[in-house]
Amino acid sequence: MDLKRMGNQTVVFANPPIILSSYSVVGPKEGQGPLGKTFDHIWKDGLDGEKSWEVAESKMLQEAMQGAINQAQVPPDQIDFMLAGDLLDQIISSSFAARQMALPFIGLYGACSTMALSMAVGSMLIDGGFARHVLAGVSSHHDTAERQFRAPTEQGTQRAMSAQWTVTGAGGVLLGGSGTGPRITAVTIGRVVDYAEKDAGNMGSAMAPAVADTILNHFNDLQRQAADYDLIVSGDLGAVGLALAAEVLKQSGLDMGTRFTDCGIMIFDASQDVHAGASGCGCSSVVFAGDIMQRIKAGELKRVLLVGSGALHSPTSSLQGESIPGIGHAVVIEA
Amino acid sequence: MDLKRMGNQTVVFANPPIILSSYSVVGPKEGQGPLGKTFDHIWKDGLDGEKSWEVAESKMLQEAMQGAINQAQVPPDQIDFMLAGDLLDQIISSSFAARQMALPFIGLYGACSTMALSMAVGSMLIDGGFARHVLAGVSSHHDTAERQFRAPTEQGTQRAMSAQWTVTGAGGVLLGGSGTGPRITAVTIGRVVDYAEKDAGNMGSAMAPAVADTILNHFNDLQRQAADYDLIVSGDLGAVGLALAAEVLKQSGLDMGTRFTDCGIMIFDASQDVHAGASGCGCSSVVFAGDIMQRIKAGELKRVLLVGSGALHSPTSSLQGESIPGIGHAVVIEA
Repeated sequence: MDLKRMGNQTVVFANPPIILSSYSVVGPKEGQGPLGKTFDHIWKDGLDGEKSWEVAESKMLQEAMQGAINQAQVPPDQIDFMLAGDLLDQIISSSFAARQMALPFIGLYGACSTMALSMAVGSMLIDGGFARHVLAGVSSHHDTAERQFRAPTEQGTQRAMSAQWTVTGAGGVLLGGSGTGPRITAVTIGRVVDYAEKDAGNMGSAMAPAVADTILNHFNDLQRQAADYDLIVSGDLGAVGLALAAEVLKQSGLDMGTRFTDCGIMIFDASQDVHAGASGCGCSSVVFAGDIMQRIKAGELKRVLLVGSGALHSPTSSLQGESIPGIGHAVVIEA
Repeated sequence: MDLKRMGNQTVVFANPPIILSSYSVVGPKEGQGPLGKTFDHIWKDGLDGEKSWEVAESKMLQEAMQGAINQAQVPPDQIDFMLAGDLLDQIISSSFAARQMALPFIGLYGACSTMALSMAVGSMLIDGGFARHVLAGVSSHHDTAERQFRAPTEQGTQRAMSAQWTVTGAGGVLLGGSGTGPRITAVTIGRVVDYAEKDAGNMGSAMAPAVADTILNHFNDLQRQAADYDLIVSGDLGAVGLALAAEVLKQSGLDMGTRFTDCGIMIFDASQDVHAGASGCGCSSVVFAGDIMQRIKAGELKRVLLVGSGALHSPTSSLQGESIPGIGHAVVIEA
């Protein structure tokens, strides 16, 4: 069999997997943002009747996964794998959602890059002939993430201007080997890149070099340039990180222009006081499952490069003085 | 293309990937156990000159990964993916090891099942035509795991008789699409199974039903029985969990006999005071990379079923009163 690869890091599919459906669930703040109308379900509060934010987050992921299944109208016994991840220790949101879904489960961890990672790995499982359908999804929750990574939200700690606001949201997509919908034509799995940023209140800076590295390698591998895409969207660098990534790329000779933006910038507007933008696995998953999928289906976007970006630190590693390793995974979606 | 599947959960490879090499690194207690002579490198203590156990664990994983590469003598630019996971929050052992390896990195989380999971996913990436070589490995460390999941080891907390001792160890394997060595012929990705066990001091019981579920599905999918394998080895149920899994299987009509054992029972002997046996991602990885691989290569074992078992809880979920979801992933290795 021929190797389905080009260049150093990029996989090109023989039979590009299809995104049969996508479903997004968000919290109220996200619902009030500029993309509010693009989401499938907006919760009235962050608990939705559950006794803890962690239980609520897992329920939200489950809802997004089930929503994607329902929308595609694929019987669960034709879904061969569930791929999921989240930000919580031991990815409990995903594991507890997988307990309810009762599908063969592959747990992934790529921090905020996990939506792109799950779509990339899921596409390989389908194109490789190992699955008819793969359910992929991720979640994050503002209050579970803040108390785990930084400070409990009840404490009202002042946030740095470079900090990003973790999105309360979950997105799910159902990928298939046949059917109609946008196709995933290529993926570039990233390497860990670390420029020694240690500030957990400035994760955009920590992730920016990894996103730039993956974009550069993706372009080199496929002999493409920015103009070959209608939209190149990272998820999630925020304003500080996006500017840095654009600067690193510019110094490497790549002018990304206005087609380069970030899910963490798109989901909130200036009035929502989120400082450098948004973050969290949920952010790129709901922006992709909502706004981007709708614009692809409407014919507005023909070819999109989604670059998931992850900060692979833990509170323990930061307290021990380690810097924050970043990673970027890229997925090409075509109408 | 034909779907490479049999039954509900099992993937059967068209061109079974080859285990080109395996490398194991362990701590002193593991080195003193009955399998001591099968490990590639035994550390004199759990720090190996590093300033924290966490840094040491990541270094150990890196050593195991590099050891597998060196043994196979494959140039790093021919390794297309690194798959790794561990027990620490945000899998920092793996991410920091991936930072050093500089390979395209897919982070996995399956608790103690992660070695089997990484071999399963890695095999699909090779058989699917997406990689020439995949480096797969996992780690665990007694002192990092105890303080994260239970109590700091300095505290000297008394352990329950049903508790398992987290292994300090890391194992790495290099998988390839061509070359010589044992082959991975089929894999069964497990579903999450939860029988409502809540005791984090009795994780063998929490995982046993998931292991039984995966073995039953594997046998049904391939129309096989226990006698079709020379060794069926879970990793890691310990003595309590193995007895329970055998009992669940017996009630389902499957007598596993003496060929069913557990990596968590093999690695320590009764004199080492580990109570119900061993656990941790590192346990099944070093037992597989050492003892089992050596017995396969010596011709003693022709067909082995490795069933990685994971307890997918977190300290947060346990403190919130949740039970412990279990999972089992099975990998068939043939001489």
